[in-house]
Amino acid sequence: MAKKRIAIVGASGYTGLELVRISLNHPEFEIVSLVADRNAGKSYSDVFPSFNNVTLPALVSLHDLVPENCDLIFCGLPHTTSQKVIKGLFGKAKIVDLSADFRLRDTSEYEKWYGSPHFAPEIQPSAVYGLTEFYREEIVEANLVACTGCNTAAGLYPLVPLLARNIISSRRIILDLKAGVSGAGRAAKVNTLFAELSEGCQPYNPVYHRHLAEFDQELTKVAKGKVEVSFTPHLIPMNRGILATIYVEGDASEIYNCLQERYKNEKFIHVLPAGKVPSTRHVRGSNNVFIGVMQDRNEGKVKLFSVLDNLTKGSSGQAVQNANLMLGLDESAGLSMVSLVP
Amino acid sequence: MAKKRIAIVGASGYTGLELVRISLNHPEFEIVSLVADRNAGKSYSDVFPSFNNVTLPALVSLHDLVPENCDLIFCGLPHTTSQKVIKGLFGKAKIVDLSADFRLRDTSEYEKWYGSPHFAPEIQPSAVYGLTEFYREEIVEANLVACTGCNTAAGLYPLVPLLARNIISSRRIILDLKAGVSGAGRAAKVNTLFAELSEGCQPYNPVYHRHLAEFDQELTKVAKGKVEVSFTPHLIPMNRGILATIYVEGDASEIYNCLQERYKNEKFIHVLPAGKVPSTRHVRGSNNVFIGVMQDRNEGKVKLFSVLDNLTKGSSGQAVQNANLMLGLDESAGLSMVSLVP
Amino acid sequence: MAKKRIAIVGASGYTGLELVRISLNHPEFEIVSLVADRNAGKSYSDVFPSFNNVTLPALVSLHDLVPENCDLIFCGLPHTTSQKVIKGLFGKAKIVDLSADFRLRDTSEYEKWYGSPHFAPEIQPSAVYGLTEFYREEIVEANLVACTGCNTAAGLYPLVPLLARNIISSRRIILDLKAGVSGAGRAAKVNTLFAELSEGCQPYNPVYHRHLAEFDQELTKVAKGKVEVSFTPHLIPMNRGILATIYVEGDASEIYNCLQERYKNEKFIHVLPAGKVPSTRHVRGSNNVFIGVMQDRNEGKVKLFSVLDNLTKGSSGQAVQNANLMLGLDESAGLSMVSLVP
Amino acid sequence: MAKKRIAIVGASGYTGLELVRISLNHPEFEIVSLVADRNAGKSYSDVFPSFNNVTLPALVSLHDLVPENCDLIFCGLPHTTSQKVIKGLFGKAKIVDLSADFRLRDTSEYEKWYGSPHFAPEIQPSAVYGLTEFYREEIVEANLVACTGCNTAAGLYPLVPLLARNIISSRRIILDLKAGVSGAGRAAKVNTLFAELSEGCQPYNPVYHRHLAEFDQELTKVAKGKVEVSFTPHLIPMNRGILATIYVEGDASEIYNCLQERYKNEKFIHVLPAGKVPSTRHVRGSNNVFIGVMQDRNEGKVKLFSVLDNLTKGSSGQAVQNANLMLGLDESAGLSMVSLVP
Repeated sequence: MAKKRIAIVGASGYTGLELVRISLNHPEFEIVSLVADRNAGKSYSDVFPSFNNVTLPALVSLHDLVPENCDLIFCGLPHTTSQKVIKGLFGKAKIVDLSADFRLRDTSEYEKWYGSPHFAPEIQPSAVYGLTEFYREEIVEANLVACTGCNTAAGLYPLVPLLARNIISSRRIILDLKAGVSGAGRAAKVNTLFAELSEGCQPYNPVYHRHLAEFDQELTKVAKGKVEVSFTPHLIPMNRGILATIYVEGDASEIYNCLQERYKNEKFIHVLPAGKVPSTRHVRGSNNVFIGVMQDRNEGKVKLFSVLDNLTKGSSGQAVQNANLMLGLDESAGLSMVSLVP
Repeated sequence: MAKKRIAIVGASGYTGLELVRISLNHPEFEIVSLVADRNAGKSYSDVFPSFNNVTLPALVSLHDLVPENCDLIFCGLPHTTSQKVIKGLFGKAKIVDLSADFRLRDTSEYEKWYGSPHFAPEIQPSAVYGLTEFYREEIVEANLVACTGCNTAAGLYPLVPLLARNIISSRRIILDLKAGVSGAGRAAKVNTLFAELSEGCQPYNPVYHRHLAEFDQELTKVAKGKVEVSFTPHLIPMNRGILATIYVEGDASEIYNCLQERYKNEKFIHVLPAGKVPSTRHVRGSNNVFIGVMQDRNEGKVKLFSVLDNLTKGSSGQAVQNANLMLGLDESAGLSMVSLVP
Repeated sequence: MAKKRIAIVGASGYTGLELVRISLNHPEFEIVSLVADRNAGKSYSDVFPSFNNVTLPALVSLHDLVPENCDLIFCGLPHTTSQKVIKGLFGKAKIVDLSADFRLRDTSEYEKWYGSPHFAPEIQPSAVYGLTEFYREEIVEANLVACTGCNTAAGLYPLVPLLARNIISSRRIILDLKAGVSGAGRAAKVNTLFAELSEGCQPYNPVYHRHLAEFDQELTKVAKGKVEVSFTPHLIPMNRGILATIYVEGDASEIYNCLQERYKNEKFIHVLPAGKVPSTRHVRGSNNVFIGVMQDRNEGKVKLFSVLDNLTKGSSGQAVQNANLMLGLDESAGLSMVSLVP
Repeated sequence: MAKKRIAIVGASGYTGLELVRISLNHPEFEIVSLVADRNAGKSYSDVFPSFNNVTLPALVSLHDLVPENCDLIFCGLPHTTSQKVIKGLFGKAKIVDLSADFRLRDTSEYEKWYGSPHFAPEIQPSAVYGLTEFYREEIVEANLVACTGCNTAAGLYPLVPLLARNIISSRRIILDLKAGVSGAGRAAKVNTLFAELSEGCQPYNPVYHRHLAEFDQELTKVAKGKVEVSFTPHLIPMNRGILATIYVEGDASEIYNCLQERYKNEKFIHVLPAGKVPSTRHVRGSNNVFIGVMQDRNEGKVKLFSVLDNLTKGSSGQAVQNANLMLGLDESAGLSMVSLVP
């Protein structure tokens, strides 16, 4: 069988880089096009010298991409740019978008949180939310999948089953998140310099982080009512990884059993044995989510811990998992990478 | 005026090292003795080569310490060892203990949390809790001060005034703490190796961390009733610093004003302007605590952020501040260090 | 065709861990036994929780290993221990040793550098040195391969072809090496704690590092005479990677052409385009060696830069490459991992 | 006695920040003006929140600086900008420049290495090179001191005495330098992002780094003839610190004695006991230089190791030391900071 012809738009960012890493070990993918407007004309190893001895197509401009030549296009562009680009590509190839541009079903919510009108509202109804384990059937049929935000994914995996079964209070959910630096992207900014971030820890966007829009959309849907999530991301001096510490009210055993039951047949979502808590190191570079459950010393209060790699299950690994479904492949093809430790 | 003669017991650990750093720049301190049993006989620069061109007494064994020769002894030993040593020194010189051994007024609580009987219960009533800004008068008169735990200090500064004034709910206090690695000490352990901790983030002692005993003691006292604190420390790949993210229920303005009012005359505790949040980098190597207050998007919920350096205000800086009071010196003598950035 | 049955002795160290990582993605390997005396009885994920959702044999003691059941045994034990263990296994299965114990053909050199008599001198003549690209034919036939030391490998790849062709001076070779922390292993030691190594850089074993024994053996052999190498390793606050900066005297073009020619058909050894220098990040987690050549501003002086991942091409990747040859498999099977960036 | 009134131009860069840190603990300095054009109008704690509870003048534009009001002006601007600014300030106050703009006595060398004509050649003859221990008398009299580059300082301290006494070969000096990231400054650049630099090590400007111009000027002067230095800086994932590993040919005892003799009365330059080598951690945040000497195993070859903090002795500490001399103060005033460890 011929391999699937894929293109990666936004190939010189970190999610693009991670898509290339995964695609090269994917048994059914052939990278036919790497798009990066500002670096067009360069070889990929000029931008990322890890690929010095790997054969890859040279970087091209968007207008040199022939979508009809592709089975599937990954789009790893900044938000708002993504809407404009996908508007032009939609219908010509299947698309997996890694940006926030098609995640919110209500386009007025997009405008509210992202401070810009939606540039492709007519396409929005076609977009399927990319939280694979919960939208599998729709993803199989989709032409456009909007991947879940990395922070949101870390929170949704433990929370969705519990709210769906109504076994935790929806009034008091506190989500304290610790995130590695690569989530801030590859743009040159003073506040993500090594000398500004290493040897320190701090909150960022501590009240109105945009991923709240996704939390509200997804949690309200499963809880069938308002859910009050307090969300506080913190920046940690590490490259990859997200640890979500989630404080909920409910019964620890019931919570544990619910999660264990929900995920027992999922390849990438794993509930740890009782008494164990995860580290982001355990999933670095892999497509796994590990979840731990601990009864607090105060009756009726429970701590959940979930970890994932923001660039893998949090974006590019998730994207490939979705692409596999859209292309009729084994859902886990190319995603068996083991975490790189140490 | 003659300088105060001080000794440091446990000089080859990190709190001992930090005491030496601070004492060398202290205008009224003279280090007369450095005690470290296992390294006795070595020069201090053999253990910490930063002091290569500094004149310091050589390390001696405990039995070579002459407490009567000292105005004050700092004791930076592991818990339980500290009780045994201080039992022998008590009454011969003023003592500032940096361990957990005399923090809990109820010795049965000590036994419960530390898994060992208290070895000097007769001295316990003499010990004053070292949270300087709240025990100042007692510390001035004390012969033995038991410094507050580093994690506890990070939580108590924002919480004590609020509970004392009863303006937050005592039923739902969630304390999510991010701590640097030096807090784990200088003992050789696999789980604090560089290759085990860097590039990752994880909870540790996520339910029953011993500093809870101090939280319970101090918060119950000011709240005049039971306080339910959920406390979850996390290990961050940085050397120094603690960030406490605290989720409380109350009115944000009332909370802000209360803290601002309480600390406006305190040199080392600083409430940030509205809308600002702190980073541990802002206090690295200094004796400062910075506190930020943010209204959550959900009515009635508030986030507090407090940072300190675990080795400075969290232990050795706090110890010097207390020693200054005990010795009749200016409380802030030797503590004007500015944070080292980057 | 049945998969090759492999065992990993020393599975709870970093080279053991890396062997497991590689073997799990190897199309022809089946891990039948994981040996770790002190952790015998534990599951592998108890020791390395990254493998939480991977099925692996539980850890066993050495005496529970049945070598006759294995096609090949990897041995990642400390030196001297390795000799004793391999003495008992030799002849029962093919063996790839990752320690220093069989690298030196002259057993008196072993005694001189390692401070211990050789415990299996009768086996030494059977051992083939594991620098794959230079001992390929012997490795194919070998029953015991002694993998090259990680530091040595970083130096030998650029130096061997140049000395073999006699185009650099053998009198003045300066090898300044920068190495990540995982090379120091997983034993609990104060000097490899996070709080002792991060945020700093220092030489270690700056004159008589044991890898000099290998340099002398291999370089003297190809140069057919004495070679004066000054070797200075430095410890860098990063987990993986070695950068060797090598100062030689010769003609830059001749050197470049020689290396380019020698390695043009090698899959894992890559000479960078003129004017490029490598970073250890470019090879992290991959089996690649990248080499850069720069003409110094002083006539007749040349700088060589070579990078590899100490745990991959520097030990476990190299070991698998050798095992592939010994087992009649494709030499690069299981070794196509792309570097993990960032 | 009234304190000395000092101004800091370029206060929002790292050298400016370090000048503020040191000046605040300086017993004779009063900061009267902080200049930062792009941040003019902001408080200093808006830019560097470590100063939240410190009283400092607000940032102003250069045209608001009144040089006649200052005893001394520190200038921490980028090169070429510095020449233009100092041209306007010269003669109105004493000036210590931290840039490269007045280091090279031959203005044509400046043009050659910095790719720009010299904008103030008429002032150049007034500038004294800021390597304090070797230009002390001239600095005392100077109106303009041009501080030594951080990398150059790390190399000159061990090399100058040896070349002055002619006890090492001037034909073969190899200077392999490992430098922390803060040396690259605070400008937003992709290649100094945390996610680009952490967990890796690489050379930069490996042949023609501009600090070679200073090496040539100073070493040729003391050696009274051409000196061939090969200089290769490497970027290390740490904030502060430079380790220079220097390979020379000579007699190790003679070299050790020469350095020991030269520096025995210098407060900040310290030759380690025989057999010891330094780490950059030993000098982090201090004004010290530590130097180690090791005989190579090859006769006649010697390794020198020198460490300093690029922001302290490598720039801002050095600048204060020079300013002390220019202002008639104790040379070491304000410079007794002990290294921050860990």
